Amino acid sequence: MPICIEFDYNNAMAEVVGPRHGLTRQLLEDLKERAAKSHKAFLERRATDVGFFKLANTAGRAKELQELAALGDSIAAACENFVILGIGGSALGPACVQRALGHLYYNLLDKAGRNNRPRIFVLDNIDPEFAAELSDVAPPENTCYNVITKSGTTPETLSQFMAFYDCVAAKVGPQKAKEHFVITTNEVKSPLLPLARDFGFRFCTMPDSVGGRFSELTAVGLLPAAVAGFNIVEMVRGAEAAAAVCDSPDLFANPAYLNGAIHYLADTVLHKNISVMMPYSEALRDVADWYRQLWAESLGKRRGEKPHEVCVGQTPVRALGTTDQHSQVQLYVDGPNDKIFTFLCVKKFRREFPVTGGLNAMLQGYEYLSGRDIQDLFEAEFIGTEYALKLAERPSVRITLERVDEAHIGGLLFFLMVQTAFAGMLYGINPFDQPGVETGKNVARALMKGEGSPDAQWLADIRTYQRERLRYPAVAIRTGA
Amino acid sequence: MPICIEFDYNNAMAEVVGPRHGLTRQLLEDLKERAAKSHKAFLERRATDVGFFKLANTAGRAKELQELAALGDSIAAACENFVILGIGGSALGPACVQRALGHLYYNLLDKAGRNNRPRIFVLDNIDPEFAAELSDVAPPENTCYNVITKSGTTPETLSQFMAFYDCVAAKVGPQKAKEHFVITTNEVKSPLLPLARDFGFRFCTMPDSVGGRFSELTAVGLLPAAVAGFNIVEMVRGAEAAAAVCDSPDLFANPAYLNGAIHYLADTVLHKNISVMMPYSEALRDVADWYRQLWAESLGKRRGEKPHEVCVGQTPVRALGTTDQHSQVQLYVDGPNDKIFTFLCVKKFRREFPVTGGLNAMLQGYEYLSGRDIQDLFEAEFIGTEYALKLAERPSVRITLERVDEAHIGGLLFFLMVQTAFAGMLYGINPFDQPGVETGKNVARALMKGEGSPDAQWLADIRTYQRERLRYPAVAIRTGA
Repeated sequence: MPICIEFDYNNAMAEVVGPRHGLTRQLLEDLKERAAKSHKAFLERRATDVGFFKLANTAGRAKELQELAALGDSIAAACENFVILGIGGSALGPACVQRALGHLYYNLLDKAGRNNRPRIFVLDNIDPEFAAELSDVAPPENTCYNVITKSGTTPETLSQFMAFYDCVAAKVGPQKAKEHFVITTNEVKSPLLPLARDFGFRFCTMPDSVGGRFSELTAVGLLPAAVAGFNIVEMVRGAEAAAAVCDSPDLFANPAYLNGAIHYLADTVLHKNISVMMPYSEALRDVADWYRQLWAESLGKRRGEKPHEVCVGQTPVRALGTTDQHSQVQLYVDGPNDKIFTFLCVKKFRREFPVTGGLNAMLQGYEYLSGRDIQDLFEAEFIGTEYALKLAERPSVRITLERVDEAHIGGLLFFLMVQTAFAGMLYGINPFDQPGVETGKNVARALMKGEGSPDAQWLADIRTYQRERLRYPAVAIRTGA
Repeated sequence: MPICIEFDYNNAMAEVVGPRHGLTRQLLEDLKERAAKSHKAFLERRATDVGFFKLANTAGRAKELQELAALGDSIAAACENFVILGIGGSALGPACVQRALGHLYYNLLDKAGRNNRPRIFVLDNIDPEFAAELSDVAPPENTCYNVITKSGTTPETLSQFMAFYDCVAAKVGPQKAKEHFVITTNEVKSPLLPLARDFGFRFCTMPDSVGGRFSELTAVGLLPAAVAGFNIVEMVRGAEAAAAVCDSPDLFANPAYLNGAIHYLADTVLHKNISVMMPYSEALRDVADWYRQLWAESLGKRRGEKPHEVCVGQTPVRALGTTDQHSQVQLYVDGPNDKIFTFLCVKKFRREFPVTGGLNAMLQGYEYLSGRDIQDLFEAEFIGTEYALKLAERPSVRITLERVDEAHIGGLLFFLMVQTAFAGMLYGINPFDQPGVETGKNVARALMKGEGSPDAQWLADIRTYQRERLRYPAVAIRTGA
């Protein structure tokens, strides 16, 4: 099937939204030198420590993809439930692809409706209720768990692994329990690799050079997709099609670079510190959630040294059309002009839903809604919203997919990864690290380990903090029994 | 059961997060006059056209609540699936309460696990795939639809009503079809009222003085809660407990006013144009989504007349702990200091999930995670995140619920409603209207009605816009077959 992903940026330009809040051709032209440098810097990273771009290669990965598909099929045949134990980049990609390509109520279909595939869950949190209640509907004895952690050290995921291993072992014994787990982790330096090798757990590896939020096209994303029965070669083919276009150094021929530049200028020149992604598609709903990590964690960085340090990065916001027209659009149209919008549109939907006229005799004045598909209203609402934003001088861009299938989702995610990497180069920061999460991790570890551990230097700080922060008494709503 | 909801604002204050990004007691004291005026303005609205505060009254509403509970029980007994057709304020409250009080995988439980209650769905969008695929799992013949629209004119909801009415009628005939619908709408001016009365549909009404986003404690939210088997008297009792405290004119004794003032000052004095709500609780996850509408649609407003018009309002962002530590916290710690955070915490969880030690012999160095409940890690991660934000001088507040039950959720939502109303008074805007959504609605209606309708004046504008916006050609990713 042909692939077509169109990027339309007219509503980000001054000709449409006016000179105060729109970009000009000149501003983009002026960026050319910096864009060329950024392209070069990105190529250098791609040649050294950044591996995601190379993943867009169906021919070079043919054997690996075949093996992943086969592993997915064998897992699917062996269990009733497939649970992803992972968080962040290990969860958002698989969840987004499942939402995009699966039935929207997949887990409620009977087994035939699921093509004999297991139900699929993403357990991306450590709330005790979440894990306990999952076990009510996915009993450990007929569940396969995919432990996904690049580092192999993520405490959330390891805790889940520990707990579910014992749950399964209690039902089927420790030796058979291992067959209920598949580990996806870094090929070179994860503590889960020796565990898998020495104790006989199945495992997949991902390249050291691919960060979690850029890892959807590694085993992280492809194994769950294969378990669901999606065509993972097509996913990579879509990425390959995107890579061919998004490799161009010409800003105006490369949609990923162009959208990266538009967002960079929207932030730094037009003071839009918020990037809203608003799919008009339930299937694409969680693309916005996946993008939210990609954009935030890649670009939210400190640049330079104190005291000249600058904190950069737009805050990504997930929205959904038309749903959020009844929640956020009031703010988007009348609130501060501090946002740039990315609409995700779909031309051909998988299903029809005709609005028929049986109520017309009972409800006068709304006949215009009937006699057509509900998609017509969906599209009219999108145009109305885009136009209302334009009248309010709010810049936006549109990415339109011909349809939502494996190739288009692979292409779209790859497009957004390149856009993000390139934007990072424009900002002059490293889009591939995440130093800002260390403090919280260290504190949590110290609290868990307690006194006497090598991490305990944090404990005294935390105890002091917890005591000294209590300057103002809490104000409470309180009743007796 | 006793209710306890604590509001702790220490981390919003300069003593904890430093003078550049923290508030001072003095700033709050200086607001006293404006706060007194705002309290008075709110009281005036409450005495005239704003009715939500009065809903917190178990004694005065005893009969109504009893009737709603009985109607909920009778609906629950008569169907296998209960589908809410509504959008915005008609969907977010019911969805948030179902998530908070129901099993987290409720629809996957068997009927006994659901206490013989129907499965519950919220169809808050008009994507054709969404409605068609819902019908795959909730066949019209054993489904009850709750059509919720305050105005009775929401085109999304009316389209759904039309389509599903004919789906049901095709299965059970037009007369019996009516029994599959319950309408919730405005008691005085909805076109669905005469429809219901003249043609024999069941209906509930909501007061004209209660806007959609403030309507969770009317039939909008209470009927779905009753269908699910929740104790709606307890929900109102929680709101009543909140109302007793949140009626005080004293900023420092009224947690809703205090948090409204803190957010108002964070925006206008400290330039935090983003309000992040981050529950550390899967059950409370969708409170952040409900708050997102409440805060955005109430406060995102234009104030004054052109050319002195000002666009005000913080952008609310939903986050989730610990999940978003692996997605957003990098940005929150190292990105621009443009946010204020509201953490929602829970003291007692409904379930336990022990992390046992069966892997300890295979995985050295992580024994500290085992031998305890996963809740311990959950709480340690929260403290780590709050502390990391404090070190980075990012202000935050905490709202802690003793547990998540009917009374606490009613109290929490009421707290946030009062906070929002009061913040609107501080901003000097009307938090109870939404004029900004009219343009988009008008355009969508004109597009649907086409030439010759009274709405067609918009059509020429739209046609011109669609033609003239195409200045720059789309950049595409495209392949052959």
